Amino acid sequence: MTKVLAIGTFPEPQRTALQDGFAPGFLKHPGALAARPAEARAGVSAVALRTIARIDGAAMDLLPDLKLIANFGVGYDQIDVAAATARGIKVTNTPDVLNDDVADLAVAMLLMQGRQMEAASAWMRDGKWASTGPFPLNRKLSGGRAGILGLGRIGREIADRLAGFKMEIHYHSRTRKQTPGWTCHADPVALAEAVDFLIVAVVGGAETEGLVSAEVIAALGPRGILINIARGSVVDEAALLEALEAGRLGGAGLDVFCNEPKIDPRFYALPNVVLQPHQASATVETRGAMAQLQRDNLAAFLAGKPLLTPVN
Amino acid sequence: MTKVLAIGTFPEPQRTALQDGFAPGFLKHPGALAARPAEARAGVSAVALRTIARIDGAAMDLLPDLKLIANFGVGYDQIDVAAATARGIKVTNTPDVLNDDVADLAVAMLLMQGRQMEAASAWMRDGKWASTGPFPLNRKLSGGRAGILGLGRIGREIADRLAGFKMEIHYHSRTRKQTPGWTCHADPVALAEAVDFLIVAVVGGAETEGLVSAEVIAALGPRGILINIARGSVVDEAALLEALEAGRLGGAGLDVFCNEPKIDPRFYALPNVVLQPHQASATVETRGAMAQLQRDNLAAFLAGKPLLTPVN
Repeated sequence: MTKVLAIGTFPEPQRTALQDGFAPGFLKHPGALAARPAEARAGVSAVALRTIARIDGAAMDLLPDLKLIANFGVGYDQIDVAAATARGIKVTNTPDVLNDDVADLAVAMLLMQGRQMEAASAWMRDGKWASTGPFPLNRKLSGGRAGILGLGRIGREIADRLAGFKMEIHYHSRTRKQTPGWTCHADPVALAEAVDFLIVAVVGGAETEGLVSAEVIAALGPRGILINIARGSVVDEAALLEALEAGRLGGAGLDVFCNEPKIDPRFYALPNVVLQPHQASATVETRGAMAQLQRDNLAAFLAGKPLLTPVN
Repeated sequence: MTKVLAIGTFPEPQRTALQDGFAPGFLKHPGALAARPAEARAGVSAVALRTIARIDGAAMDLLPDLKLIANFGVGYDQIDVAAATARGIKVTNTPDVLNDDVADLAVAMLLMQGRQMEAASAWMRDGKWASTGPFPLNRKLSGGRAGILGLGRIGREIADRLAGFKMEIHYHSRTRKQTPGWTCHADPVALAEAVDFLIVAVVGGAETEGLVSAEVIAALGPRGILINIARGSVVDEAALLEALEAGRLGGAGLDVFCNEPKIDPRFYALPNVVLQPHQASATVETRGAMAQLQRDNLAAFLAGKPLLTPVN
């Protein structure tokens, strides 16, 4: 009887590592669960999850013996955690091991966008440096005012890096934090008003949906740059697109979107954005560490030991 | 009689500021000096310089009353300073005010190259994220070993920023520096052997020509990334191109080249480089501050006061 079911797309060498450790069944998509015979679903006590597809209570009910969903990724907004808790199912994620990479990409997108580096690269490659002259001046970034929306583990890593660029650090978070003199703001609009650059680092899910509203974007303004490495759902994407198209927002660096990977094609027409394909944690080292932590949670569960990184 | 001659290309609003302050003559290129009548050249005591064209002793001799060359830029490798000194001509540059911008671009090129951000952007824009799947994994940068070649004012700013990325800092410099535990290496090859990323921040000119030799590039190796924000002349460009083409060097981020702006077109065919059009200090804020410092040196000279930033 299969005790572990791996749902989603598991690239090598992580598929092999799962196979070696747990001999799981593999399923590409949770939507295929219902088509499995009841006897194949019974007895599955743990799921290794690597998909952005929704896992709701109905999906959980198809696995009557389920006790653990071990998610790959720090974000687990695709899982209905309340439904899991109600069914006595524990959920784990893979926090911390990806903080550095995500913070690196956030800072990189801010620098790239502020210094117009993609446009400058194109300027050379189009022969304009030689034929037309120097690339137009852009703006100084060091010493600017950076606002971190969500000063959790990733937000903190971003702030620490930006402090190295002599930036003034502002933040809004659910709770006031111990910081080296950074300024806490009461809400996202007040934060956006106070800064040049707003970096979104909150959790995804219903509680933060649309947190970066049209009002926040307006407060950031035509010189402001918005960086999002959290989830597409956190930003009012319609308002963002309108503001970028109208020049009411200076620019954006986005690693996450609504409807990934088929994002709104209007993004591709914008001259004032840096776009990345949700690759913030996508390094060999970090994806390996995330997969290891997912397997460690599975192994702890199967051995009856405490879970390493439970979320409920 | 014209006391001040402005040689080179001065964009607005700096041309106007020069005009308002000094009513200089304007000359696009030092090569045009010889064609000027002797009486127009006599009496010129100060030159405001904004060109990468060579200013040698012969050019100086065309201005028999010259006492000051106020250069725009921290680098002054186009000026034969020894020839100037021999003629009693002082040279000034515009240091420090550009350190932040240059360091920002150096770090940004390292992040962009290491995280393959231009390729990831193209991946999305070509529709491959939706049609093919996630962008291939790249590499973790935070926590890596960074080598700074030349720990002067700009090198120090780069190191301080990279320390915020938890990098281990190594350096080679003409003199050992007071650092927070960074590792000093005896020569560039030893430095390159010790690190993942080598950032070139030495002065240009004859003394550093070819300092980043084929041997240094080999020591950096197929996983190494070379960043150059100094001068193209510091790197053996033929060796660099060969190593990048053969994959014997992992990648490069280059803001400076030999033969700017008509750089070797082989660079444009490489998949493993980030290229920028010598724009490290090219922000509105910093170019304004550099022009102000150039004018302040001119004003100090004309008022008989000490020069602010003399180099000889």
